[in-house]
Amino acid sequence: MPFKDIIVSSRVRLARNVEGLPFPTSDIGGIASYKRVLEGATAAAGFEYTLANMGELPDIDKEALVERHLISKLLCEKGSAGAVLLSKDRSVSVMINEEDHIRAQCIKPGNELYSCYRSIVKYDKELAKHLNIAFDSQFGYLTSCLTNLGTGMRASVMLFLPALVFCNKTGALINLLKKNGVTVRGIYGEGSRYKGDMFQISNTYTLGVSEEEILSVVDKAVEYCMQEESIARKRLKEERGLLLEDEVYRAYGVLTNARLLDSDEFMSQISKLKLGMSLGIINFTQTEKLDEIVLSCQPGNLCCRVGRRLSDGERDLVRAETVREALVNLK
Amino acid sequence: MPFKDIIVSSRVRLARNVEGLPFPTSDIGGIASYKRVLEGATAAAGFEYTLANMGELPDIDKEALVERHLISKLLCEKGSAGAVLLSKDRSVSVMINEEDHIRAQCIKPGNELYSCYRSIVKYDKELAKHLNIAFDSQFGYLTSCLTNLGTGMRASVMLFLPALVFCNKTGALINLLKKNGVTVRGIYGEGSRYKGDMFQISNTYTLGVSEEEILSVVDKAVEYCMQEESIARKRLKEERGLLLEDEVYRAYGVLTNARLLDSDEFMSQISKLKLGMSLGIINFTQTEKLDEIVLSCQPGNLCCRVGRRLSDGERDLVRAETVREALVNLK
Repeated sequence: MPFKDIIVSSRVRLARNVEGLPFPTSDIGGIASYKRVLEGATAAAGFEYTLANMGELPDIDKEALVERHLISKLLCEKGSAGAVLLSKDRSVSVMINEEDHIRAQCIKPGNELYSCYRSIVKYDKELAKHLNIAFDSQFGYLTSCLTNLGTGMRASVMLFLPALVFCNKTGALINLLKKNGVTVRGIYGEGSRYKGDMFQISNTYTLGVSEEEILSVVDKAVEYCMQEESIARKRLKEERGLLLEDEVYRAYGVLTNARLLDSDEFMSQISKLKLGMSLGIINFTQTEKLDEIVLSCQPGNLCCRVGRRLSDGERDLVRAETVREALVNLK
Repeated sequence: MPFKDIIVSSRVRLARNVEGLPFPTSDIGGIASYKRVLEGATAAAGFEYTLANMGELPDIDKEALVERHLISKLLCEKGSAGAVLLSKDRSVSVMINEEDHIRAQCIKPGNELYSCYRSIVKYDKELAKHLNIAFDSQFGYLTSCLTNLGTGMRASVMLFLPALVFCNKTGALINLLKKNGVTVRGIYGEGSRYKGDMFQISNTYTLGVSEEEILSVVDKAVEYCMQEESIARKRLKEERGLLLEDEVYRAYGVLTNARLLDSDEFMSQISKLKLGMSLGIINFTQTEKLDEIVLSCQPGNLCCRVGRRLSDGERDLVRAETVREALVNLK
């Protein structure tokens, strides 16, 4: 079973702060501090980028970026004091004045943890040439929140685990991961439920471990989850056979025909379809395209598509339209 | 709105018995009686026909004929003492030794009550030339059951009333029809629930009324039901608009994709689809083809399709297959 059927995306982010400037969480600093950080962050970018100030970006565009994990909700609330620098291909995003002066991340579809790490380290090295990064020999990188002290690094991988959810095995899995220094969240961070059978796993600790150790901890956890999910999928197919086939095709039938699709039903149906595709039940090859459909059907992305804020009812209508179009093109 | 969207089929049947022969419900008579009735029934047929003795016909074929309203369950139980004569196009069926010696009916898709009547009267006139039909000047045609005395005629029409069902108006309608000498049943006779939003209406009385009066009573009832259903459909479309469209397309999505379809879900989904077609929500023209799909997906007809008895699970599988094929060809 290819990795892409289980690993949706990989992400590595670094938290950095500038020596001598107050943390962005404090009220002091203001515009002078913002300008200095921005200057350094843009100077470090050895790639084409766009820059968006949070005071100027329309709300629906902010929401769409949040849904794609390119900025955080906290940054959106910063108004003109915050900004994001986005590489043209959107793999690198640098948040300016979020919780820390700099939150630089690299995100890629599929199993790309190490490649994300290499990309973001490259940016980080450039950054150090332009800004005086706050670093303590005992505590490592100094961060606004203590939970990020040390490496200031979070390595996370989004996993699609429908068979483990079906077999009711995710509770035990999450506990096991916790004991091994891995945190598990839903698709939209802390507290978000595991919609669409998506699980975001990342390192719990940033202090007292090296960057390589963090990558290794997360990578091993990913490996373990993949094995368990593969076994569960095989068993599911063997044991449920026709019932599973029925569910998968019904999901396809609903997604390609419904005129109204609320978020919960959409996530549940697309999960079944994706599982069916990965098990060869339904003959589509490009499962990763479904991940793009998932993102493009989140509320903010739907509003962006039509260029204005939508009511709940309108959203369900536009979501259904979007899915139909996308699936027709997929076939 | 064309009639065929509401009127599924029309049927007229006559009950006749041969003077001097014991009713088939008694044990007396036997083979000699059967032969004499059979001779007369076949001699009267001025059309191409096939003849099937109930002792020889496989059970699954019997079931399929019952589902198509061409024979009754009672006839099936008669074994070699009963038979059916079927015209090539299956519009005319003559049951021999069911409750009466002869039960001759004509059944046609759509609004064809009067044309069914003319066809079956033609056969009845021929029959009288070959058999001595039991007739009393006071009671009319003598029948095995008192409820058929007089004309021995039942005129019935199968109606599709999904909008009235949705608006919860069928209870009141049925009561009103009852008061006007009209009996309402489900798709498979007395006691059968109104599956697929199908209602069979027929004359309650056969005695003390003329054949023309019976036709007129049923025809008026049909006219009334059609008007009410048309109004309800229009209102439903206006008031539910998008919700209705969503339901109709979901039904189409499930019917064209499900791998397992039980009888209840099938009837409910096909009803939604048919309603959607009749309201122009979904662009199929031939609603009457859906009525054929309904018949071909009943249990006995499914068994006939594969040529053997099927378990419940197998039936749901073959039903789903049959529907998918039929709907693909429809599009």
